Amino acid sequence: MGSKYPPSMRRCLPLWTLVLEAALIVIFFFFTSYDTSSQDPKKLAGTFRVLQDVTIMVALGFGFLNSSLRRYGWSSVAFNLFLLALGVQWAVLMDGFLEQSFRKKVVIKLSSIKLATMSAMSVLISAGAVLGKANLLQLTLMALVEVTVFVTMRMIDRQYLSMDSHLSMMHIHVFATYFGLMVAWSLSRCLNKMVMEEKNQTAKSSSLFAMLGTLFLWMFWPSFNSALLDVPKERKNAVFNTYYALAASAVTAISMSALARPRGKINMTHIHNAILAGGVAVGPSCHLITTPWLAMLLGFMAGLISIGGALCLPFPHLAIGF
Amino acid sequence: MGSKYPPSMRRCLPLWTLVLEAALIVIFFFFTSYDTSSQDPKKLAGTFRVLQDVTIMVALGFGFLNSSLRRYGWSSVAFNLFLLALGVQWAVLMDGFLEQSFRKKVVIKLSSIKLATMSAMSVLISAGAVLGKANLLQLTLMALVEVTVFVTMRMIDRQYLSMDSHLSMMHIHVFATYFGLMVAWSLSRCLNKMVMEEKNQTAKSSSLFAMLGTLFLWMFWPSFNSALLDVPKERKNAVFNTYYALAASAVTAISMSALARPRGKINMTHIHNAILAGGVAVGPSCHLITTPWLAMLLGFMAGLISIGGALCLPFPHLAIGF
Amino acid sequence: MGSKYPPSMRRCLPLWTLVLEAALIVIFFFFTSYDTSSQDPKKLAGTFRVLQDVTIMVALGFGFLNSSLRRYGWSSVAFNLFLLALGVQWAVLMDGFLEQSFRKKVVIKLSSIKLATMSAMSVLISAGAVLGKANLLQLTLMALVEVTVFVTMRMIDRQYLSMDSHLSMMHIHVFATYFGLMVAWSLSRCLNKMVMEEKNQTAKSSSLFAMLGTLFLWMFWPSFNSALLDVPKERKNAVFNTYYALAASAVTAISMSALARPRGKINMTHIHNAILAGGVAVGPSCHLITTPWLAMLLGFMAGLISIGGALCLPFPHLAIGF
Repeated sequence: MGSKYPPSMRRCLPLWTLVLEAALIVIFFFFTSYDTSSQDPKKLAGTFRVLQDVTIMVALGFGFLNSSLRRYGWSSVAFNLFLLALGVQWAVLMDGFLEQSFRKKVVIKLSSIKLATMSAMSVLISAGAVLGKANLLQLTLMALVEVTVFVTMRMIDRQYLSMDSHLSMMHIHVFATYFGLMVAWSLSRCLNKMVMEEKNQTAKSSSLFAMLGTLFLWMFWPSFNSALLDVPKERKNAVFNTYYALAASAVTAISMSALARPRGKINMTHIHNAILAGGVAVGPSCHLITTPWLAMLLGFMAGLISIGGALCLPFPHLAIGF
Repeated sequence: MGSKYPPSMRRCLPLWTLVLEAALIVIFFFFTSYDTSSQDPKKLAGTFRVLQDVTIMVALGFGFLNSSLRRYGWSSVAFNLFLLALGVQWAVLMDGFLEQSFRKKVVIKLSSIKLATMSAMSVLISAGAVLGKANLLQLTLMALVEVTVFVTMRMIDRQYLSMDSHLSMMHIHVFATYFGLMVAWSLSRCLNKMVMEEKNQTAKSSSLFAMLGTLFLWMFWPSFNSALLDVPKERKNAVFNTYYALAASAVTAISMSALARPRGKINMTHIHNAILAGGVAVGPSCHLITTPWLAMLLGFMAGLISIGGALCLPFPHLAIGF
Repeated sequence: MGSKYPPSMRRCLPLWTLVLEAALIVIFFFFTSYDTSSQDPKKLAGTFRVLQDVTIMVALGFGFLNSSLRRYGWSSVAFNLFLLALGVQWAVLMDGFLEQSFRKKVVIKLSSIKLATMSAMSVLISAGAVLGKANLLQLTLMALVEVTVFVTMRMIDRQYLSMDSHLSMMHIHVFATYFGLMVAWSLSRCLNKMVMEEKNQTAKSSSLFAMLGTLFLWMFWPSFNSALLDVPKERKNAVFNTYYALAASAVTAISMSALARPRGKINMTHIHNAILAGGVAVGPSCHLITTPWLAMLLGFMAGLISIGGALCLPFPHLAIGF
């Protein structure tokens, strides 16, 4: 879509995102207010911690995971931040409007920013498939559409299928993966295939950065999986199980990857996907599992399956979603 | 100043910093004691968290932001740590002495280390303009003088102008920028101009590290802006507003940078400065603003102005202060 | 030991680690259960924070510290994660069995994962001496043996020498260093010496990553040194003293390193070791020291001694332990 535009038109694309930001400010002016009710300062401090954990996971984790593509070093980190900042603002609005059926002003709490950051994560997962194929305006459009669709889907989950908030969030990986694949597919029809392949090659020197991203995702996944649970016991279980599933999938992934190669060398993309597969696999049920072995078994299976998946999927960076 | 010294004298410069560290230990021996009053363990844990957030922001954020200079890779991170460690020790002493007018022993609390870390940040901001032009002794002298001046200025703000602790801290960006420019100007008079320009060039391979630094600053800025506020409501507002200002300035900065370049490429130095400008702009008033749109507007304006500023300022790494 | 195996046998080595992971799941199935007693949610949140701090310190700090070896870039980070994930699972089992003398099921609390992560750290310290000389199976064996020996040693310390939990943990640095040296010595007897020297060379481009690892160790050391202390006052002292010792050793180390070189350049390996020496030196007594100058003196001495040590030790990455 972007490649059809003449150069003169391409130049004015960034102007649209500036106008969009200005429009967002106007919308916030008319339709939002801060939460002025006095809250327990300790509960607030706790929510702030979780919000910060999720922000670290999303900004650093996804930012540096995608930075290993050869031609998109630091600018992929910058675009990641752009999508995060835009997605959070839009998701706060969408969440608020849908919650209150457009009747009154949206009241912004600290927990709405936490929820919005988690919703904006869907854009960053999808961006892994699109990065290097889309320009700034296309990314912006994708962010707006994807957040709107995801927030609406979550609202339907909660109101009509009486799903709880945690469970409806855990669909994010599958949703964002298919959304990203769909966008990448529709973009790639008009691009030269050879260019794409070159763009998908991994730069050797940024492998360490990709590992940095992986580690941040690995470390803060327990916070992500327990972020929307309110009952202390469920929260504790979610932390426990995510921790054990990730430990099992890390061991499995590195062993499997060494097994698949004749000289015992390990493949980095395998490692990324398989290590994180444990966290995704245990997500929907992490608050219900009451024994460590079940979480470890899920992590073990996820590690095994995802190495297989990584060998045949066309978009390796998306395999996180499976 | 350093370039005038003969080589034999240059060699013994590090000895002075060792003597200084020994002298600091002696001063701590005679004039300080830990806070022995029993405190609420939960409040203590909260203060420790904020201290750690500020330390992460300062050590990682500024350390890696400056690491993109071509000739100062990892050693700039090491010097950054050196200045931080020295500055904190000195700032604790200065703060304590000025608070109690030299009458009795300085009582060190966890919150005094937090305050000292924030004061020491002024040295790290200034170091961005001086790095690569100053030797170890010059950096040490700058740290001691700058911390002394900044702490004294804050004391005058509080006692004679009845400014609160938060507001007097928020001058740090402007103060440190001008201090750094002044030091850099006085150092550069005796240096070959061509050498300087070469030193200011950015190394391609460390751009990702500079983005890492930027992200850490971006993520922990809400903690920094709310660190000195005690009223829970003001603290909440500070977190909210800083968060929104940073989101708006990130979107604006990346759009503006793409707009300024004909082929849609973005400039890394622009991104650093403009993304962070939102946090600086909202700093002094972040606890008073009660609507998100105002914070976003500040971030938007800061993003616009700072791209302009980055195009004409001689010391790009200092533009954070504006 | 690994080099004696024929290629066909080497290929099936990773299979053993997969079998091991499966065996661990079976052991967890029969012998463990989660802690189901209802706990204070605030205390739980506090334990989770400390667990996360220790995980960040161990996964990022040690991972990237070792990544500077020329031939072991991102894969050393991956192996580090492998050892951590495996070590934690094994340490939880060992701790539980020894605590209850094999009589009943092991009850897993959040604090047992915290303790296990700290025990697994011993493997990561030793891995610094072995990395590049051992294959996956050898690393796995080392992890299992080392964790078993360390946990048994801690149990003997506590039960027969009536040492408290904190003090027995602080032996970890000395223990892990000598264990690593021993393993490295027995592995190196059958390896070509020239190969080893080449493997020990530092890659220029990853120096920044090593600094990143150092900074993470530096920042989270206060959390590590206070993690096993329950009395709020001791905990506060531990944080204070570790903070001051690290500040003094950072200043000392960078000065000393500049002093040792004729042109004022600093040596990166010196910096790593000496900066962290302060944290190690203050570890065993950090909860008992009641004045900042004593902690600073320990840091100062540790910085001085470790630069000397780094000049003559054969395994520079191990010098952390001293």
